Amino acid sequence: MARVFNFSAGPAALPQPVLEQAQQELLDWQGSGTSIMEMSHRGKEFIGIAQQAETDLRELMAIPQNYKVLFLQGGASTQFAMVPLNLCAPGNAGNADYAFTGHWSKKAVAEAKRYCDVNVAVDTQENKFTNIPVQADWNMGDAAAYVHYTPNETIAGVEFGWIPETGDKPLVADMSSSILSRPIDVSKYGIIYAGAQKNIGPAGLTIVIIREDLIGHAGPQVPAMLNYKTFADSDSMYNTPPTYSWYMAGLVFQWLKKSGGLDAMGKVNHRKAEKLYNAIDNSGGFYRNPVAIDCRSIMNVPFILKDDALDKVFLEESKKAGLVQLKGHRSVGGMRASIYNAMPEAGIDALVDFMKQFQTQKG
Amino acid sequence: MARVFNFSAGPAALPQPVLEQAQQELLDWQGSGTSIMEMSHRGKEFIGIAQQAETDLRELMAIPQNYKVLFLQGGASTQFAMVPLNLCAPGNAGNADYAFTGHWSKKAVAEAKRYCDVNVAVDTQENKFTNIPVQADWNMGDAAAYVHYTPNETIAGVEFGWIPETGDKPLVADMSSSILSRPIDVSKYGIIYAGAQKNIGPAGLTIVIIREDLIGHAGPQVPAMLNYKTFADSDSMYNTPPTYSWYMAGLVFQWLKKSGGLDAMGKVNHRKAEKLYNAIDNSGGFYRNPVAIDCRSIMNVPFILKDDALDKVFLEESKKAGLVQLKGHRSVGGMRASIYNAMPEAGIDALVDFMKQFQTQKG
Repeated sequence: MARVFNFSAGPAALPQPVLEQAQQELLDWQGSGTSIMEMSHRGKEFIGIAQQAETDLRELMAIPQNYKVLFLQGGASTQFAMVPLNLCAPGNAGNADYAFTGHWSKKAVAEAKRYCDVNVAVDTQENKFTNIPVQADWNMGDAAAYVHYTPNETIAGVEFGWIPETGDKPLVADMSSSILSRPIDVSKYGIIYAGAQKNIGPAGLTIVIIREDLIGHAGPQVPAMLNYKTFADSDSMYNTPPTYSWYMAGLVFQWLKKSGGLDAMGKVNHRKAEKLYNAIDNSGGFYRNPVAIDCRSIMNVPFILKDDALDKVFLEESKKAGLVQLKGHRSVGGMRASIYNAMPEAGIDALVDFMKQFQTQKG
Repeated sequence: MARVFNFSAGPAALPQPVLEQAQQELLDWQGSGTSIMEMSHRGKEFIGIAQQAETDLRELMAIPQNYKVLFLQGGASTQFAMVPLNLCAPGNAGNADYAFTGHWSKKAVAEAKRYCDVNVAVDTQENKFTNIPVQADWNMGDAAAYVHYTPNETIAGVEFGWIPETGDKPLVADMSSSILSRPIDVSKYGIIYAGAQKNIGPAGLTIVIIREDLIGHAGPQVPAMLNYKTFADSDSMYNTPPTYSWYMAGLVFQWLKKSGGLDAMGKVNHRKAEKLYNAIDNSGGFYRNPVAIDCRSIMNVPFILKDDALDKVFLEESKKAGLVQLKGHRSVGGMRASIYNAMPEAGIDALVDFMKQFQTQKG
């Protein structure tokens, strides 16, 4: 079958040129006679690959010198524990502010409660996570060790258009689904973390960007593998890292640079999202997105059909048209188009065309 | 360059037919129009791949029904913490027996000490980890929650030829470098764990085989991602698993089945190791392996040259001959040939020929 347009929320589509290069190099990386998968992480070939990936990411995101970039395992779910274990004082003395704006921040809150007193500064569950209150309406704690939020929530499709102001308290962000989608000011953050499987590379790699003064505060009960210092001190090679995912991430970073970097990517992503939201909003109610307009996600676009009896046939026919993985999360229903960096604008055009055609036939 | 014989200790060589299939399927898995790397782990395609891998591993190792097989992240280093966090009573009340027979068991001991009282039942550090005392000489604790050992140590190249008897105490084994190298009796173990990057697949995947009664004893302070129950209850899909490594592991399991399973693999591995040790022992002292004969590893064969001034030229010339990654660990010096399942017998023959030739020239 020809390659399809893949709207999976994650693991998500990768840029085709990246996959083609990986395929070409799979058995023999640059004349080495071995696959990347077979290389010692301590060898000069892999260390070169690893360092280049970090250099490219630093350049793409303009990461300041006083931040470490860590290449870890375990996904955002491991970070949900690692953040409080490293930033709250040992023995549950600390407390932390959390913004509770979707499914993933809910999981972050639940895990943090094992290690510190969580102050939920804002909670949009009652509105089914379809809005983000302005910061003046948040209830921040006085002595929080940090403030945690999720800039983009993949399930409801809700995204912050602004960065919370937290003064001296470090701001911690789960950017799994929005990292690299546009330029951001890294210096506003204490920690940025992201599972790779949306905008970075294959699943199994987690990137952490951490301000250096936040490293080294974990207590003795924290496992070595959950202590940021372990990885900051070892160039992320305390143990065998996920080498192939790291290499693939490096190829994605090079593709991003060739594509014009995050400025260019941000423009394309806004245009892609605008086309799709316009198609939804201009459908006379046949398609509908319930999220407040000022916080609609540019990465994950959920939409429901007026008649949910048509869901099944929509999915079947879109698949036949080469548009796959459009089923919405069960908690929201309907459809969801995840349109990360690797989704070309042509994929959005094809989806919009299909949606119009489908409405004409069934509306 | 042509493919070389790669003696890396890990990440290690993978079977060439596995790499070829991965290459062929990289952009389009079985007509799906997407790469495995781009597939949702919740979709029926990936769930099929995941289940088949587990089924094949269960068949290869004859894993009894009362064991769960978990596909995790974080490597053996994460298991060093996860084992005591799950098997020792919370609050440091527990204690555990550890066999201290090499570099990796040393790391396991250090990590376990965060969570329980470690009784070192046997310690071969004084002998530079070149022997394994019989169990009658071990000093087992009375009330240990479990007994931990490392059947094969990759650095000194020392391997148990027998399984410790632990009565009612669960036996826990770090099998990272020996799993799948020969048949074993899984029912003798409470937990078997292994990082993938030697005999299973690419780095970034960890396999845990755990007896069901050992699941569910972690305290509330244990992170969800370090609790075996989290993964036992979710078919290892609590969060996004390392999907591509899981798929690659599945291809390796199928290759093992086609190759005759672990009986056949064990015979080949013993023959490979015997050829190499014979070449060392019959070199009149030009090459030497310091490990006691009854516990020499069949997976990692370290050897030193009589004259270490020849190390550099040995490495250069062996590389020219297509034999790579032979440098020994810095703590041992000399050479190390890691000869896991994917190293064909032809690779051993080529190495032995090279060693003889080198000795003729330089001896």
